[in-house]
Amino acid sequence: MGKLLSDKELKTASFSQLNELCEQIRSEIFNTVSVCGGHLSSNLGAVELTVALHRVFDFPQDKIIFDVGHQCYTHKLLSGRADRFHTLRKRGGISGFPKREESEYDCYNTGHAGTAISAALGFSKARDIKCENYKVIALVGDGAFNNGLIYEALNSIRILGSRVLIILNDNGMSISPTVGGMHEILGELKSGERDVRLFEQFGLHYMGIYDGNKLESILPALEEAKGLLERESVLLHVVTRKGCGYPFCENAPTETHGVSPAGTETKEYSTALGEELSALARKNDKIVAVTAAMTESLGLRPFFREFPGRGIDVGICEEHAAVLCASMAAAGLKPYFAIYSTFLQRAFDEVIHDICSQNLPVTICIDRAGVSGADGETHQGVFDLSYLSMIPNLTIAVPKDIGEFRAMLRASVDFDRPLAIRYPREGTESPISDIEIGKFEVLHSTMSDIVMLAAGERCLKTAENVRRRAEKLGRDFTLVNARFVRPLDEELLSGLKEKHIITLEDNVLCGGFSDAVARFFEGRGKFIHRFGYPDCFLPHGSAGELREEFGLGEEQIFDCVMRIYAGG
Amino acid sequence: MGKLLSDKELKTASFSQLNELCEQIRSEIFNTVSVCGGHLSSNLGAVELTVALHRVFDFPQDKIIFDVGHQCYTHKLLSGRADRFHTLRKRGGISGFPKREESEYDCYNTGHAGTAISAALGFSKARDIKCENYKVIALVGDGAFNNGLIYEALNSIRILGSRVLIILNDNGMSISPTVGGMHEILGELKSGERDVRLFEQFGLHYMGIYDGNKLESILPALEEAKGLLERESVLLHVVTRKGCGYPFCENAPTETHGVSPAGTETKEYSTALGEELSALARKNDKIVAVTAAMTESLGLRPFFREFPGRGIDVGICEEHAAVLCASMAAAGLKPYFAIYSTFLQRAFDEVIHDICSQNLPVTICIDRAGVSGADGETHQGVFDLSYLSMIPNLTIAVPKDIGEFRAMLRASVDFDRPLAIRYPREGTESPISDIEIGKFEVLHSTMSDIVMLAAGERCLKTAENVRRRAEKLGRDFTLVNARFVRPLDEELLSGLKEKHIITLEDNVLCGGFSDAVARFFEGRGKFIHRFGYPDCFLPHGSAGELREEFGLGEEQIFDCVMRIYAGG
Repeated sequence: MGKLLSDKELKTASFSQLNELCEQIRSEIFNTVSVCGGHLSSNLGAVELTVALHRVFDFPQDKIIFDVGHQCYTHKLLSGRADRFHTLRKRGGISGFPKREESEYDCYNTGHAGTAISAALGFSKARDIKCENYKVIALVGDGAFNNGLIYEALNSIRILGSRVLIILNDNGMSISPTVGGMHEILGELKSGERDVRLFEQFGLHYMGIYDGNKLESILPALEEAKGLLERESVLLHVVTRKGCGYPFCENAPTETHGVSPAGTETKEYSTALGEELSALARKNDKIVAVTAAMTESLGLRPFFREFPGRGIDVGICEEHAAVLCASMAAAGLKPYFAIYSTFLQRAFDEVIHDICSQNLPVTICIDRAGVSGADGETHQGVFDLSYLSMIPNLTIAVPKDIGEFRAMLRASVDFDRPLAIRYPREGTESPISDIEIGKFEVLHSTMSDIVMLAAGERCLKTAENVRRRAEKLGRDFTLVNARFVRPLDEELLSGLKEKHIITLEDNVLCGGFSDAVARFFEGRGKFIHRFGYPDCFLPHGSAGELREEFGLGEEQIFDCVMRIYAGG
Repeated sequence: MGKLLSDKELKTASFSQLNELCEQIRSEIFNTVSVCGGHLSSNLGAVELTVALHRVFDFPQDKIIFDVGHQCYTHKLLSGRADRFHTLRKRGGISGFPKREESEYDCYNTGHAGTAISAALGFSKARDIKCENYKVIALVGDGAFNNGLIYEALNSIRILGSRVLIILNDNGMSISPTVGGMHEILGELKSGERDVRLFEQFGLHYMGIYDGNKLESILPALEEAKGLLERESVLLHVVTRKGCGYPFCENAPTETHGVSPAGTETKEYSTALGEELSALARKNDKIVAVTAAMTESLGLRPFFREFPGRGIDVGICEEHAAVLCASMAAAGLKPYFAIYSTFLQRAFDEVIHDICSQNLPVTICIDRAGVSGADGETHQGVFDLSYLSMIPNLTIAVPKDIGEFRAMLRASVDFDRPLAIRYPREGTESPISDIEIGKFEVLHSTMSDIVMLAAGERCLKTAENVRRRAEKLGRDFTLVNARFVRPLDEELLSGLKEKHIITLEDNVLCGGFSDAVARFFEGRGKFIHRFGYPDCFLPHGSAGELREEFGLGEEQIFDCVMRIYAGG
């Protein structure tokens, strides 16, 4: 890559220099993401808009908050991070999301959708209280405009009385195409059918529509918005093309939203979810599937195609999705709520208040559980075993492989209480055998004093590796597939009172599987050896690196076995 | 009370009989709430509207979902529960909220705001999928219309394509007066200034305004809405007067929203919060206070009055409130987020993703922690120690009394990381002494082998009672005020390795204080005796009854001490 214009040079650059800069950036993003993986089409779509923002505003004095944050690559390239950009999403490298700890140009960390307007209002309110003078901008995709948090923030603009510029980056997409009433309102704005008083009602001066991929359109619009911002809050409605500049991205924005590094090819749990749920739904017309804007990545597109009336994508509305599932279950259906682990945090109250306190037969299929890797702190699925384990009435299943996941889904149909099944992205296929809900499986039985309880495919793989190494040294141990983290298989555990117990879980230790096992054994005078993640936020890196570095490394666990043998 | 008309008789009753029924119900509600406590003004306001609903619709075949649910008393009286109404909110008596387990007339349990439209859509979608035939009604207050979940549901009406009747019960109030952009839109609708296309955009036929306290207005409106519902979804905008029929309630709707049983008079933590925060804010102009529609009940009205620019009530928007606090902290302010324990569940993701992952100095003041009593399952604050204990970077404080709470607030000002302080409604004043964040306090030191670690005022009271009784029998023990549940005071705990440990917490055991203590002692070959709530939802009843019945009874704990002495 040739040297990029600096943030300063950019202020005085000619129009053609700016256009050239955009092309440089676009190709840098494309090349880096092709190698490192990352968010492609959203970043390609936001190049001109971001360059224009850097031209018109003065960062880092002015503040910009990227909603979700996955479209911040151009901003990173323009704020002193171009020479490190090739380390994108790698352990120790730069993050794929805004990070305050990385640059003063990143004023607020994001990752989950819908926080940017609230955060922008917080900054502007703080500015006013502290009598400071800077501008605050929230850049929000139209997909997030479905989210309740965005509405809560819009609703409070008048209450707070602090000025912000909201840029609505309207590309018609979340990860899946955007849906819903607000989407239709935006559509009518675009076609000129609708007046703009709705946003004015919320205290926003509406400006639109501008072409966010054309500097000649967006630069004067931003200048005008900047002027208006002296007196009032502004909503600037910009249309961009996701994947802009690369036709194969423009034509397949969902497929190129997130890109894996070259050479990645694995089997995914999501495919199995789609296959099994469709097969089950053919035999049971009460089955419905609900997603929150991630139908493809959760594997449910085939289900939605085959059962259009029974597949519901509500957009980025995790809370609503959870209540919808609870109420459909109360009305006699059998709902499956598919969602990523980290996003289920958004529906935490509804899982307690709507699903579990009413003990309703909703099955929550939790994808990307455990360390999810390159997206970093905001996307790790390492808390779910903890925040779900405290909820009464909930059963939690953790399959050992994709075959067992299929078996769990089959067993779930007749299970009449709340059920959560959590699994990582990738897995191994296997023949399907029946499972009994609530029962562990002894995978390898020995007379050894040591029993390892491992929850989930990744932990079982590590456990099996350790076991084979130990066996070669004559230090074999019993290995148990702890496939139900809640309730525990107390019958099996009762037989282990005299044993040394080692637990493995792809989750933080606080509040997770090991705490439950410890609680069970307490008063019986024994203690356990726990492996899981420590009490910190896990950064970005590959899942394997993170597991190794943060407490689930094979070596550590092997050493533990050896130590117990040595001591016993 | 004279016998009420049955649901059936009501269908054919004359107009004057219906009006008489309303008066009977109103007086029944007033008399019962005066004795049992409960929600007064919201129920008085909804009498005619609910009677009219029972006249026009066929319950339980038709389904009605009460948002929040605290306005369901008339519905209960009309659905076969009049003779048990005097047991309202008492242990074993009828709940103050809709409960499926109580009557088939209650199709969906509520308690937290904003779920009703989602739930109504779930029922109507299920009805359509199952080719059944009934009507579905959501009754929602205008306060909840600020909530993001309501917006997420409105946004999906077109996606789902199933018909519902939404009744907007507009009384201008949450617990506090309603605020925000949507409130202004509703205001303009009422004054006729605004056209109604906004709701039509979301797929709703708008009907309004009707007087919900006049049968002659609301009955024909409901009949018309019922007819329209054959073809489309309807939003019926009804204005009611909170407290209607009792002038002192109408004039003080906030004060009479929730009424305590006669003869209750206690000191509340909320008063101290207001006093301390105001005092601190006088010396520190970075302090701001944020609430979600509960300024009065959290004790912050004086703060808001004294610092109008620094007290922010965002309405029933817990998520937005949390992000606002995080971003104001990122921008250099010192925010205090005051909220009830059960409602903080709504902002769970934001506490993780916005406040704690950025390690920002937000102080969360968690009121109504522990069993909150008469409101039942949906309002118990017994999960917070668990769902907060798993979050990295967060410190959790649990004061032993109001004096210590004041000291914690004073210490919080210079604490530059996330802090949660959780406390029950009522407490005891005491002189203030300095505290050090992270340090336990030994309240009573002995040479005994037994050490009791109690977290929070209620547990310490019980612990002290037990200790006095035990001491009289020569069975004294050491009592520790475990005022920081996270991180633990490891220095103090390290000195207890040879002791019998008993833990007390006003929280479920799963994932709470005792799990953390057990984790600390593990590998040291010891085990602990834990007292806290079991793995179930706690029903309504007095806080004292519930503590006694569900695992924190004095007798149980006393027995434990005696057993340890006997065994040792």
